[in-house]
Amino acid sequence: MLIHDVLGIEAPIIQAPMAGIQGSAMAIAVSNAGGLGSLPCAMLSPDELRSELSAIKSGTHKPVNLNFFAHTPPTPNPQREQAWQQSLAPYYREFDIDPASIATGAGRTPFNAETAALVEEFRPAVVSFHFGLPEAPLLNRVKATGAKVLSTATTLEEALWLQQHGADGVIAQGLEAGGHRGHFLSTDLSKQMGTFALVPQMVKALYIPVIAAGGIADARGVMAALDLGAAGVQIGTAFMLCPEANTRPVHRDALKVGAAHTVITNLFSGGAARGIMNRIIRELGPMSASAPEFPLASSALAPLRAAAEAKGLGDFSPLWSGQNASGCQEIEAATLLKSLYK
Amino acid sequence: MLIHDVLGIEAPIIQAPMAGIQGSAMAIAVSNAGGLGSLPCAMLSPDELRSELSAIKSGTHKPVNLNFFAHTPPTPNPQREQAWQQSLAPYYREFDIDPASIATGAGRTPFNAETAALVEEFRPAVVSFHFGLPEAPLLNRVKATGAKVLSTATTLEEALWLQQHGADGVIAQGLEAGGHRGHFLSTDLSKQMGTFALVPQMVKALYIPVIAAGGIADARGVMAALDLGAAGVQIGTAFMLCPEANTRPVHRDALKVGAAHTVITNLFSGGAARGIMNRIIRELGPMSASAPEFPLASSALAPLRAAAEAKGLGDFSPLWSGQNASGCQEIEAATLLKSLYK
Repeated sequence: MLIHDVLGIEAPIIQAPMAGIQGSAMAIAVSNAGGLGSLPCAMLSPDELRSELSAIKSGTHKPVNLNFFAHTPPTPNPQREQAWQQSLAPYYREFDIDPASIATGAGRTPFNAETAALVEEFRPAVVSFHFGLPEAPLLNRVKATGAKVLSTATTLEEALWLQQHGADGVIAQGLEAGGHRGHFLSTDLSKQMGTFALVPQMVKALYIPVIAAGGIADARGVMAALDLGAAGVQIGTAFMLCPEANTRPVHRDALKVGAAHTVITNLFSGGAARGIMNRIIRELGPMSASAPEFPLASSALAPLRAAAEAKGLGDFSPLWSGQNASGCQEIEAATLLKSLYK
Repeated sequence: MLIHDVLGIEAPIIQAPMAGIQGSAMAIAVSNAGGLGSLPCAMLSPDELRSELSAIKSGTHKPVNLNFFAHTPPTPNPQREQAWQQSLAPYYREFDIDPASIATGAGRTPFNAETAALVEEFRPAVVSFHFGLPEAPLLNRVKATGAKVLSTATTLEEALWLQQHGADGVIAQGLEAGGHRGHFLSTDLSKQMGTFALVPQMVKALYIPVIAAGGIADARGVMAALDLGAAGVQIGTAFMLCPEANTRPVHRDALKVGAAHTVITNLFSGGAARGIMNRIIRELGPMSASAPEFPLASSALAPLRAAAEAKGLGDFSPLWSGQNASGCQEIEAATLLKSLYK
């Protein structure tokens, strides 16, 4: 059974929620075109989220996916955050930034009672989580609305855990995928695998649907993922040049280069995420032991990113991308979606 | 155009050459069953090679692939090899091994004039290389026999290089693949990608056929790879439990566990290769800066491997495996081959 049959939509394609890259405009365009549009909610304040939800309400009557983070918030560690800032001191000097002006703290709130209430009010067709699932009482509130619940697994072990804890489907996130890795049982990246190995093994082991993510960029890729036994696909990178995306100019330029070198890095948030190689990754190395735990590393690079972007440089920006950006096109999201599935 | 049409065989499937794991028996079985059987030649002496070739000659009239290494032999570095042996001293003591008895040196000869003469004599349908291509004079001798020449690429850059230097087809080795990575332009593993991302990008960029390798374990995987635009597939791991394979007992046991944790390690040869996690990898870490350059690290672990295997332990063995061993079956290679393509 493919996911579009379950959801009553035209294509078995979820537009990947991309926090910081897209909002309601993308979700509306994709859902109206027959895919499942997604709203990334994790970086929105409750007011922003409410406003995005009402935009969606008036923009489409089709099924939509709301995506939340389900990470365990780390214990704040001001000393470590301070040390992280200090290791960036040469860059602050280069861009004339006063380190005292830099905010600390997390900035990404996991799914909570307040957001659960918004889900109850908005009643989306699908709610997807990254970094595991919320605690049972919160999850049960979501499930009671009738929403299908999805979450990301990077290993077979995580997929089985999600199935056992109430997920209606699992997003198999291959190592090719752009943005944050969704692991939640182990931080050992060597346990994670490519889409081609991950999807069939999950399909064999699970009784719930498996949605393939990572490396899928065009209609051939969609067909290949379904051949591997996936019930659908989740595609992110290919949508990043669409006019409905808020992808910054430096990020758009980096995606247009073609076959860029991507790496998994923790510099931008403290969590492992795949993005295009740039100056800060080259100079500090992609994985820094000094970076505070996710998402505590986020604020330290923010002013550098802003200062560099103002000069047209992506040297300090998280240039999220999967390993296959060959599907990126500067066309409307609806046109792109329709090219992915016939 | 799929590779089996080019070669006049039944299935677009190359049995991956697996040095140390299989010889002529496997190649004959696969070729007779309609695939392209491969003989790994890199670890055979000229006499052994000649004997294997005559076994193939009397075993099959179908096309066969001979596989050679094309690495640049490293400058011997006895001091570094000595230091590598010394770092293993506690293990030698544990197994009562006299370090003075351990051979040094390479043990894997790249393709040369002598092996070229054997190719001219044997006239295989296909000659494949790992680690690049031999120098033009040697390569031209191979091509003059009418053999189709294949080689492995782990990046788009390597694929374009191979196309430009005379390869008739490229094996796109995704990160999922077991055994040695075939890179030859850069040792930066972060430049390498999963099969799902690698194959379509090579297909778009090359005019020669692309053969997908890595993570392909069953008929669905073969179909998916062809959907991505591959002209054929190369499958290794799935054949390792067949009776025609010489896979050691400890290795067979490790493959039967199912969804084992594999890592890319340089401990066994100095070159990066994917195998199942075991004691030596856990204790030294998968990538050691002390391991001499490929293939100079090979001899130091050999006596430990032998001693441990004699006790039924795979603690020091290279347990090569791709990330998807779910296709391994204890059935004849011909039966397995036929299950992969209908």
